[in-house]
Amino acid sequence: MTVAEATIDHAVRAADAAFASYARTPAGERARFLETIAGEIENLGDALIEVANRETALPAARLAGERARTTNQLRMFASLIREGSWRDARIDHAIPDRKPAPRPDLRRILIPIGPVGVWAASNFPLAFSVAGGDTASALAAGNPVVLKAHPAHPETSEMVAGAIGRAIRSSGFEAGVFSMVQGASPETSLALVRHPLLKAAAFTGSLRAGRALFDAASQRDQPIPFFAEMGSVNPVFVLPGAMRERMQAIADGLSASVNLGVGQFCTCPGLMIGVDGEVFERFASRLHALFAAAAGGTMLYPGIQKSYDEGIEKLRQLGGMQVTRSAAQPALFETRAATALRHEEIFEEVFGPSAILIRCASAAEMEEIARRMPGSLTATLHGTSEDILNHRKLVALLEQRAGRIIFNGYPTGVEVCAAMQHGGPYPATTDSRFTSVGTAAIQRFARPICFQDAPRDVLPEELWDENPMGVSRIVDGVLTR
Amino acid sequence: MTVAEATIDHAVRAADAAFASYARTPAGERARFLETIAGEIENLGDALIEVANRETALPAARLAGERARTTNQLRMFASLIREGSWRDARIDHAIPDRKPAPRPDLRRILIPIGPVGVWAASNFPLAFSVAGGDTASALAAGNPVVLKAHPAHPETSEMVAGAIGRAIRSSGFEAGVFSMVQGASPETSLALVRHPLLKAAAFTGSLRAGRALFDAASQRDQPIPFFAEMGSVNPVFVLPGAMRERMQAIADGLSASVNLGVGQFCTCPGLMIGVDGEVFERFASRLHALFAAAAGGTMLYPGIQKSYDEGIEKLRQLGGMQVTRSAAQPALFETRAATALRHEEIFEEVFGPSAILIRCASAAEMEEIARRMPGSLTATLHGTSEDILNHRKLVALLEQRAGRIIFNGYPTGVEVCAAMQHGGPYPATTDSRFTSVGTAAIQRFARPICFQDAPRDVLPEELWDENPMGVSRIVDGVLTR
Repeated sequence: MTVAEATIDHAVRAADAAFASYARTPAGERARFLETIAGEIENLGDALIEVANRETALPAARLAGERARTTNQLRMFASLIREGSWRDARIDHAIPDRKPAPRPDLRRILIPIGPVGVWAASNFPLAFSVAGGDTASALAAGNPVVLKAHPAHPETSEMVAGAIGRAIRSSGFEAGVFSMVQGASPETSLALVRHPLLKAAAFTGSLRAGRALFDAASQRDQPIPFFAEMGSVNPVFVLPGAMRERMQAIADGLSASVNLGVGQFCTCPGLMIGVDGEVFERFASRLHALFAAAAGGTMLYPGIQKSYDEGIEKLRQLGGMQVTRSAAQPALFETRAATALRHEEIFEEVFGPSAILIRCASAAEMEEIARRMPGSLTATLHGTSEDILNHRKLVALLEQRAGRIIFNGYPTGVEVCAAMQHGGPYPATTDSRFTSVGTAAIQRFARPICFQDAPRDVLPEELWDENPMGVSRIVDGVLTR
Repeated sequence: MTVAEATIDHAVRAADAAFASYARTPAGERARFLETIAGEIENLGDALIEVANRETALPAARLAGERARTTNQLRMFASLIREGSWRDARIDHAIPDRKPAPRPDLRRILIPIGPVGVWAASNFPLAFSVAGGDTASALAAGNPVVLKAHPAHPETSEMVAGAIGRAIRSSGFEAGVFSMVQGASPETSLALVRHPLLKAAAFTGSLRAGRALFDAASQRDQPIPFFAEMGSVNPVFVLPGAMRERMQAIADGLSASVNLGVGQFCTCPGLMIGVDGEVFERFASRLHALFAAAAGGTMLYPGIQKSYDEGIEKLRQLGGMQVTRSAAQPALFETRAATALRHEEIFEEVFGPSAILIRCASAAEMEEIARRMPGSLTATLHGTSEDILNHRKLVALLEQRAGRIIFNGYPTGVEVCAAMQHGGPYPATTDSRFTSVGTAAIQRFARPICFQDAPRDVLPEELWDENPMGVSRIVDGVLTR
């Protein structure tokens, strides 16, 4: 066993040892634990922001906002589990005199799945990292977490892991409820995803790394669910009416959305599509001018910069592409739909502040672009009511390819709430049935169990007839509370 | 392209072509379609039972019961989608004056995932075959289905596929909403699971075939969810108090459960575990006597008989096993826990009317057996209230390993209802978060989509503010109706 393997083995065994008791903690106790983590993160004060700023080059104001998002997220999951309806309780009472055979008493509820592995992302050093949404939702469901830290912000990670550790101790839980492992080598990641006691995993990052880990998870003797969110091209379609009415505002909004945070968001708009004509011409000119003047900034870490430069260079080599690149990072490519449809590279994400403007000859050509589009976290439409009525087919095509459809807005900015869907068909994620943002993210880490004719003291409270927590349940086929 | 590949390609393309319009049919229309299928199956009359009986050797009465289960299942999914709450609608209204940034209007709902591949099982030629639970749930969610028929009952399959075809025509749907493909070769199955336009799949059958298809699904350029239900050992623990009080009745019940339908149920109890002593001795004697006299019967098809014989032979070769085999199929093995723990073969399913009785030296040894147990569809406990209180640790261990825990009953007999869970950790299934029986089976074939600031006429009715269907929804974090 290598050192990396031994470290992982130790962490996963501790998680497994902690599972039985942590899984059975009352929801209220787990909720207080999540709130305690939030408080401990706040207690880290400005020092956390300073360290994160030094490690990631992200501005302090952005990091402070991200910290608030992180602690809000923890508190959101605390509320969710305190309320309890997420466990999808269902009761079908016995029918002893049913013919030809009696029906037994059946009660079904979600229970925690087991130790969860989480791979931290680089681009949200707080909200998608050590105590981010994956950790929060896995812990909320009742699962211990083994977190693989991102090598781009090790000290930030240690600080947040320390905050979680303090919360574990003050809650009286076993230490194995949360462990963090540092290590940049693929060996560490593979040891974690292959550990026989790991029961599920979540990842946010590149397609290459996400796919490699998904493959390892699927090829285990006992495969485990591996949810990888791997980013996407996030196309934006600008329909003719909107183009005529708001061309300038849309160009400004798009440039701001692409360049926000040096383009380092998984929902950064990578394709902009419109129908050629005099207004499109002005729209394109304005976008080129905006990109030529865009400020850019330092990217998160050298590896991301390198991938970005390579992605830009690859696009530059394609025939039929015009490019505007500012003195800093930002790059705007422009091409015709006919050219785009010949190059699959156009539909691959380049992580960073670049976008490709696609000039279509017709609405039919826009549909063709939509049809070619790979799975994406988001798809955006700018259109008047009339535009949208006239482009129903385009809307329907986008619904098949994206997790979230945005009307007259911009894809960056992902709300953390019950109605959010941050996911989408492959390669946006490895399983379009789940989300990594919002309350539904907890569903990745729970599995149903059915109790047949069980004595009351074996059942979780949510399945008692008197329903002391007042959760919503399906009782004999009817939703009740 | 081989003939098998061309056949599959034709079917999946037809499913893909039908998807856009079928996915958008109002729920009421799809519900009527499912009911029409049920009616068309009933219209096949006795001829269906006669053909199925000839092909499978299952008795006519059993097949008539299975037909009722199949049509009830179709009608259950019709009710489910007519009611509409399964789509998990969620609305978070806009907060335009929120600081630092306004919240957009977000509305999330489940939509159909796309063309679904279904592999029919041999052991339920109606309820888990052409128009079985997988097909019913996939169609209910709004997905076209390409069904791979089981080669053990081709004529039965043709008759049911004909019934579905008539329902498609009378409903005015596109033919591609359902296609059936016959073919026993692995090539046909692989062509289906690898088809780029297939979006999800479900399978019921052996571990070997299920795992091979799961691997192919995971290794695609674009992996798809593949739910395989592959059976399990379904252990039954008999605790001391129950042993003293009801030893005879439990032995009789277990023998009946193992031998029901020549043991050809995925929930057939394969392991029986108790603590040694004078009562256990009598329990064991009675079981041996029951198995020695058990009638057996013709198995479904030669391949299943061959696997059964091989499984029995493999167990016979192990050291420390005592065996009673009736003149017909049934076989009861008996061994000590210490021996069982040395042989992993003991924890592998032998599909058919065989079981292994495990004699434990203590409660701790019973726990050790539970700990060693692989994932299972079910686990059963026979115990008095006191027994169950005294064996909380055993119950907790079983909850981690099974999809359904049965108290003082028998695992065969799987209710079709909201609270059923027919699934479990690997190798019972490839994904413990889903079920293939009951209303929740539909969740395998739907994915969430979020609409941000969408005009009302783009939204499904379930997401309109006025909620014309009256579905249950989470609105601004609160469950409403």
